[in-house]
Amino acid sequence: MISDYQHFCQQHVDGALEQLLRAPTFELQRLYDAMHYSVMNGGKRVRPLLVFASCQALGGEIQQAYGAACAVELIHAYSLVHDDLPAMDDDDLRRGQPTTHKAFDEAYAILAGDALQALAFHALCDENLSPVSSQQRLDMLKELSNAAGAKGMVGGQAIDLSAVGQIISQDTLELMHRHKTGALIQASVRLGALASNHATKQKLEALDHYAQSIGLAFQVQDDILDVISDTKTLGKQQGSDIEHGKPTYPALLGLEEAQRYAQTLKQQALEALSDFDHKAVHLRQLADYIVSRNN
Amino acid sequence: MISDYQHFCQQHVDGALEQLLRAPTFELQRLYDAMHYSVMNGGKRVRPLLVFASCQALGGEIQQAYGAACAVELIHAYSLVHDDLPAMDDDDLRRGQPTTHKAFDEAYAILAGDALQALAFHALCDENLSPVSSQQRLDMLKELSNAAGAKGMVGGQAIDLSAVGQIISQDTLELMHRHKTGALIQASVRLGALASNHATKQKLEALDHYAQSIGLAFQVQDDILDVISDTKTLGKQQGSDIEHGKPTYPALLGLEEAQRYAQTLKQQALEALSDFDHKAVHLRQLADYIVSRNN
Repeated sequence: MISDYQHFCQQHVDGALEQLLRAPTFELQRLYDAMHYSVMNGGKRVRPLLVFASCQALGGEIQQAYGAACAVELIHAYSLVHDDLPAMDDDDLRRGQPTTHKAFDEAYAILAGDALQALAFHALCDENLSPVSSQQRLDMLKELSNAAGAKGMVGGQAIDLSAVGQIISQDTLELMHRHKTGALIQASVRLGALASNHATKQKLEALDHYAQSIGLAFQVQDDILDVISDTKTLGKQQGSDIEHGKPTYPALLGLEEAQRYAQTLKQQALEALSDFDHKAVHLRQLADYIVSRNN
Repeated sequence: MISDYQHFCQQHVDGALEQLLRAPTFELQRLYDAMHYSVMNGGKRVRPLLVFASCQALGGEIQQAYGAACAVELIHAYSLVHDDLPAMDDDDLRRGQPTTHKAFDEAYAILAGDALQALAFHALCDENLSPVSSQQRLDMLKELSNAAGAKGMVGGQAIDLSAVGQIISQDTLELMHRHKTGALIQASVRLGALASNHATKQKLEALDHYAQSIGLAFQVQDDILDVISDTKTLGKQQGSDIEHGKPTYPALLGLEEAQRYAQTLKQQALEALSDFDHKAVHLRQLADYIVSRNN
């Protein structure tokens, strides 16, 4: 069951994150409170799960991948904090709770996000959290700094901004998602593979295809849920994408076609793993889960 | 002459930064424009100069320290962009030019800052920009991720926020500056030393003392200039610290005592370098310059 494994991963990564989010001095308490609030909010930890599942798929132990799991979640968390700011998406709720700038203030939300990004790289440098060779840790750092920056996640947010209220093609929509969410999902599986110490060029390529397919499937399903789910299940305002004038797959393809597309992407993800043995079970289960979830 | 060396360092780091700030695709052009605008603004490149001067003080070549020099400047640049935002200091001018959120918009200023931080870590991972051992590059990454985050620069900004409009002690003021500007200055000399491949524990400790002294001296002089300089020379609104209710050294100690304090700090910086030979000339000249500059 993916929910058992998700719970297992969540416990492991949340334990490690708690350690990283402890204020070292009294003067920094409020900043750490804002960082802690932004990260420890009941998130599903999909990206850490991908790190762990990918590490295990190549025969590694999840303890080797703590640094990578924390790092990708910290990057994800900071991006949500900044994304929710008034100058960006201007969201008041995140997973049913006030967003960081509502619970603290805008200045603290900006700073907490900035500090979480630095902490992500710090976690990846830590030899206790990433007990692999220096070269491997450097490869992980290079991967993450690329995926998190202008050529990856932040670039995706910039493309997203310029697309609001525009009629765009499926190609442009996919370019945006490949950057905005896809880059970090791909980095998650690659970091997990590197942490296993058993990554090969061939395996990394297969994992890239897997990540690209589930990344897109995740987004298509998100767009579908924004249309068909209710606000309570979703934990954010239902229909908020449409209200913000954001281009979505159901708007572009129609609801039924979007649902079919999500299934096709799931199949492509599973095919990418055809050379992997039973140890890739969690990666396979996740592909199923992504297109069947309801929040 | 420090101005010749400063110009020399500026040319080297600006050349490397230009390469890093080139948009890879059309869709990312505006984001890269905002990043480029935020970095290539005629900055004095004090932190890269510290990197190069420290590397040379230990017998290294500046070409070994390109990655470190770019990284500290990118972190510095992103922090200014976010610091200038309306929710933070709300400044319209930076070095006489519109701040990034004025020249672009708030969303792009947030994203450009985020992307510059990621790029700083990416630059440090690059083996061409940091042609030293993997272990040395990892040490540099660890150092920078610590100095840039909640325990360093961002923590200082948080302490600064909570101090606005408050009457604070000299201890609290120094705690704030040690984090806000001191951490990155210290990281600059340490990264330069690590890039030289000749760093010893003893030399690093001496450089720490040097960095702490000039870091504080830099801040004391900044506060003094805010009082005695005119807006045109300063490139920002004269008296803006006082107007913002920020605690400053002249306010705390009186102008004359603050000027004496800056001189004492300069002496301490020079004494910290007593075991260094003539190759530390630029570090020594910088200590002089910091307390004699007028902008």
